[in-house]
Amino acid sequence: MKKLYGNAVVGQSGGPTAAINATLSGVIKGALRAKDEGYINTLYGMRNGIEGFLEERLIDLFEAFADKEKLSVLEQTPSAALGSCRKKMKSPKDDPETYEKLIELFKKYDIRYFFYIGGNDSMDTVSKLSQFAREHDYELVVVGVPKTVDNDLTATDHTPGFGSAAKFVATTMKELLCDVSVYTMKAVTIVEVMGRDAGWLTASAALPAVSGGRAPDLIYLPEKRFSPERFIADIKRIQEDHPAVLVAISEGIKFEDGRYVGEGLGGRKVDAFGHVALSGAGKVLEDLVKNELGCKVRSIELNLPQRAAAHIASKTDIDESVGVGSAAVKYATEGKTGIMATIDRAEGEEYSVTFGYRDISTIANAVRGVPDEYINAEANGITEAGLNYLKPLIIGEIDIKYVNGMPEHIIL
Amino acid sequence: MKKLYGNAVVGQSGGPTAAINATLSGVIKGALRAKDEGYINTLYGMRNGIEGFLEERLIDLFEAFADKEKLSVLEQTPSAALGSCRKKMKSPKDDPETYEKLIELFKKYDIRYFFYIGGNDSMDTVSKLSQFAREHDYELVVVGVPKTVDNDLTATDHTPGFGSAAKFVATTMKELLCDVSVYTMKAVTIVEVMGRDAGWLTASAALPAVSGGRAPDLIYLPEKRFSPERFIADIKRIQEDHPAVLVAISEGIKFEDGRYVGEGLGGRKVDAFGHVALSGAGKVLEDLVKNELGCKVRSIELNLPQRAAAHIASKTDIDESVGVGSAAVKYATEGKTGIMATIDRAEGEEYSVTFGYRDISTIANAVRGVPDEYINAEANGITEAGLNYLKPLIIGEIDIKYVNGMPEHIIL
Repeated sequence: MKKLYGNAVVGQSGGPTAAINATLSGVIKGALRAKDEGYINTLYGMRNGIEGFLEERLIDLFEAFADKEKLSVLEQTPSAALGSCRKKMKSPKDDPETYEKLIELFKKYDIRYFFYIGGNDSMDTVSKLSQFAREHDYELVVVGVPKTVDNDLTATDHTPGFGSAAKFVATTMKELLCDVSVYTMKAVTIVEVMGRDAGWLTASAALPAVSGGRAPDLIYLPEKRFSPERFIADIKRIQEDHPAVLVAISEGIKFEDGRYVGEGLGGRKVDAFGHVALSGAGKVLEDLVKNELGCKVRSIELNLPQRAAAHIASKTDIDESVGVGSAAVKYATEGKTGIMATIDRAEGEEYSVTFGYRDISTIANAVRGVPDEYINAEANGITEAGLNYLKPLIIGEIDIKYVNGMPEHIIL
Repeated sequence: MKKLYGNAVVGQSGGPTAAINATLSGVIKGALRAKDEGYINTLYGMRNGIEGFLEERLIDLFEAFADKEKLSVLEQTPSAALGSCRKKMKSPKDDPETYEKLIELFKKYDIRYFFYIGGNDSMDTVSKLSQFAREHDYELVVVGVPKTVDNDLTATDHTPGFGSAAKFVATTMKELLCDVSVYTMKAVTIVEVMGRDAGWLTASAALPAVSGGRAPDLIYLPEKRFSPERFIADIKRIQEDHPAVLVAISEGIKFEDGRYVGEGLGGRKVDAFGHVALSGAGKVLEDLVKNELGCKVRSIELNLPQRAAAHIASKTDIDESVGVGSAAVKYATEGKTGIMATIDRAEGEEYSVTFGYRDISTIANAVRGVPDEYINAEANGITEAGLNYLKPLIIGEIDIKYVNGMPEHIIL
């Protein structure tokens, strides 16, 4: 096989995570190795994903990381150091100009390797681009690298970024258990966790169960329909045992009729300007509990810190994120194109992973939810099988470098 | 001076913090020393503060921590391991029964030393109790130990628990700066921080300014009245420089007319049950920005994790919290009663503290806000003097013990 030699470009796309920069670091490390092996001349980073590439906003990453020490700072920096975009690529048929412009720029910058780190939309971009290049006889290797806190990509055991978000959620739930349990009066605390369609991150709220002491009382995922009546009955039952109830819900839970809980219970919220306001599922359930039980109630939306809290990143997640980024470059130099690099869990008691890849066309736009065997029969908790799946993903801590008491971050 | 010998009791009161257990550990360490020195026989912990003491819900802390290793786990456990209460003691004149019951229990358990860790209300309890004991010829030493994330107690340079909450706020703001800056479109992110009357914790949102890279753009404290017009003008001005604006506000900011911003802009929020809803200052300003500027806007309420996030506790705070708890016992054995132990900052460039004490009657029920010289002239940011005050309080990290990827906590 003839060696494909030229430049490479890497981009980050979609919502940030605490590990997407670790994957970028892995791609840089892989590309440095590929440079030594005679595949890659220079590695460019595209600012703001494909959007920035189309505007030729590029940065030479070999130059930016000439000091290798900086890679470890990159690995502890949350969010996307290259910037991100939310561009969903149309098909070449519907938007030929964009694809022709891309080929033109690939030629201009002698790009032969294209790495895209992202979620579902990004894998769709990888799929379309690799097909277009093939059909237009431009020799280009296109490899996707997964990331998403939602853990909803198929074909990979889990996604880079999920473990760190899960560790933040699990740790925060454990800390909240300490906090909400100090008084003797009845109280309900509802924690709203990210995950519109897939409940993986909310499921990780159950992890304090394997860390000693109490576990959160109730967990509701979007995979199962939510019944306000059963919810109130669940709380009443638990309060017969202890007064402070801690609940985790996915932002995307839906009523039996399919409406989002965040849309409210028939009533409508109106903001100060008279607009109908969607206040979030947590707030709606807070109002419900106040009305039905009259006890103290509080809702907490974990919000962006879930995906940004790199200071409590999972070492397992960060190591794997670097590893899968590096592996993606290896597959690329082996001539594999139109693929997504994956993390595959080995069989057996002891947790271990290998990296692999799948044809992108089998992956793009499919969503993987939490399977039934991970959700208890009452649809208000996580089974032991679910905990066993989640547990290894949050193990280990990064040795974070601090500057004046705050984690050091890199700005590109 | 004759040695006062007997048992001691310690309680935790008011809202939890990440460091109130470190102070408890300090009291235990101090009491163990006082046992060796012949002052204290046994140290009891009262569950749920004075409320639990009145119900004789006590725990022998020397027994519970016979294994000294457990003290370091206690120091990394957030919230109040003994439980807490919100009881505001009436005066002996208005509620003689309670005070007589207390004296009866002191005699029953041979209590000669009473330690109370808490905020303003707790110091008020200390004040009333020491006075009552003195007037009724019961030999009792009563010492208060401060705690509050609000940092609003007078007479101490800062309060145990504040530094850890400030480190969480500062770190989260720094991570959010990474997160909100990834897209090229205009956006405003409003972070609502605890602090009804005092803006100390919100001020700590400015700390990323001393940690490299960008700093949050706008910071509004309750010490200054809030103008919606100036807020919108501030955002417009900043968006001429960069598209993503990050704002921190205290939950307690007020309009020029003295109403809380959380009460809304004249319009009224109504929940699904038709009740008027106070949605919080962040949500109100989110609606305002949406209406006035039309750009993407999000509000984030940091909520309970601010005071519970022991995993990112400040080592300075934890060390001082242990130290001031231990010092409180020393002062008690020296016969000082009706006092609060304090943290005093030494003069000079280098940060260092000593512990001291003040007569409680000069402290109880006074609130200390952020002084003018720490707030900039535009009332939308923190001055260098403010940053210099805050900076040392968040320095250093605890070597946290983890169990299955989550911090280990103690349950008493």
